[in-house]
Amino acid sequence: MELSARNQLNGKVKNVELGMITASIKIEVEDPNVITAVITKESAEKLGLKEGDDVKAIIKSTEIIVGK
Amino acid sequence: MELSARNQLNGKVKNVELGMITASIKIEVEDPNVITAVITKESAEKLGLKEGDDVKAIIKSTEIIVGK
Amino acid sequence: MELSARNQLNGKVKNVELGMITASIKIEVEDPNVITAVITKESAEKLGLKEGDDVKAIIKSTEIIVGK
Amino acid sequence: MELSARNQLNGKVKNVELGMITASIKIEVEDPNVITAVITKESAEKLGLKEGDDVKAIIKSTEIIVGK
Amino acid sequence: MELSARNQLNGKVKNVELGMITASIKIEVEDPNVITAVITKESAEKLGLKEGDDVKAIIKSTEIIVGK
Amino acid sequence: MELSARNQLNGKVKNVELGMITASIKIEVEDPNVITAVITKESAEKLGLKEGDDVKAIIKSTEIIVGK
Repeated sequence: MELSARNQLNGKVKNVELGMITASIKIEVEDPNVITAVITKESAEKLGLKEGDDVKAIIKSTEIIVGK
Repeated sequence: MELSARNQLNGKVKNVELGMITASIKIEVEDPNVITAVITKESAEKLGLKEGDDVKAIIKSTEIIVGK
Repeated sequence: MELSARNQLNGKVKNVELGMITASIKIEVEDPNVITAVITKESAEKLGLKEGDDVKAIIKSTEIIVGK
Repeated sequence: MELSARNQLNGKVKNVELGMITASIKIEVEDPNVITAVITKESAEKLGLKEGDDVKAIIKSTEIIVGK
Repeated sequence: MELSARNQLNGKVKNVELGMITASIKIEVEDPNVITAVITKESAEKLGLKEGDDVKAIIKSTEIIVGK
Repeated sequence: MELSARNQLNGKVKNVELGMITASIKIEVEDPNVITAVITKESAEKLGLKEGDDVKAIIKSTEIIVGK
């Protein structure tokens, strides 16, 4: 499946922290850049996310704020 | 001002394209990665965005989808 | 690629309307339900979206408001 | 009140799971489709969401990613 | 209909600007605060938005970034 | 840093509630208006948010739904 989301950064999972409903996933996109994604705990478990996994951080372009 | 947004990627503006209401900003975060942000044309003009500007792409962690 | 986005509705493209920066895509998820997605014109063109295409409408669960 | 959100799917609450800050609401929009919405626990309680409630899943069109 | 969105600010439409796909709506929530909402042109037309209309600016709490 | 986000409301933190992954921040933007922002617990702690802090509630214009 190809996605309309313009931004798809390759990275590796560095850390998975599960809450009750949400989960925080740290993704190293390029040393030393780490991206934080908050997804549902259910998704984290269904994807079986664990440190070292190759993943994509997918971000729709309307969600990005530009700072200058 | 410090922001709660966990993800703030440094980059350079590669291209600014203005529509009637929105504008598309291409930001090179690290060769060869280019991020697309769709913001209002008004913001693009107020920030005076042009190719070569040093900017940040700011993304709240709840906006990121993880693909594996 | 498997996505963390919990909501992935299958549907067919009913209409594609291109603006200067954005594009509006009408997706029939189930007669008579039609979903509207606003994506970049660039994505609409890269995906080659046209009426009748089988697509998925992907929605992260944090983006949904519940009305009762 | 009429909303600008283009997408308002009618459905029934199938499950409510409360976390500390957020809550996950499963909404059956049409058998066998189930939509997951993550909202604040506070909202879930104020709306008194429970299994069987008729609700709307409201999604702004800029939040939808198209996969093909 | 009651909404899960925690933030519903009352205001008046100050300006409506239509693009091809999107529309920019300026809402005065309290003098001198003006909020900008970018919605689809289709929604702006269906709601018949015009200067002086009493409206609500509805914002889900997960969409807000905190700056300090 | 100047932001592309059109909406930046000044306010004071009224309440901070930490969950496991997320945190709920109540911001009084103007008596008696209180805005709720759900951010990561990590951000709430890094910003050291506490009652009485002067903060900004930053909202991108594409995230706002208009109700009439």
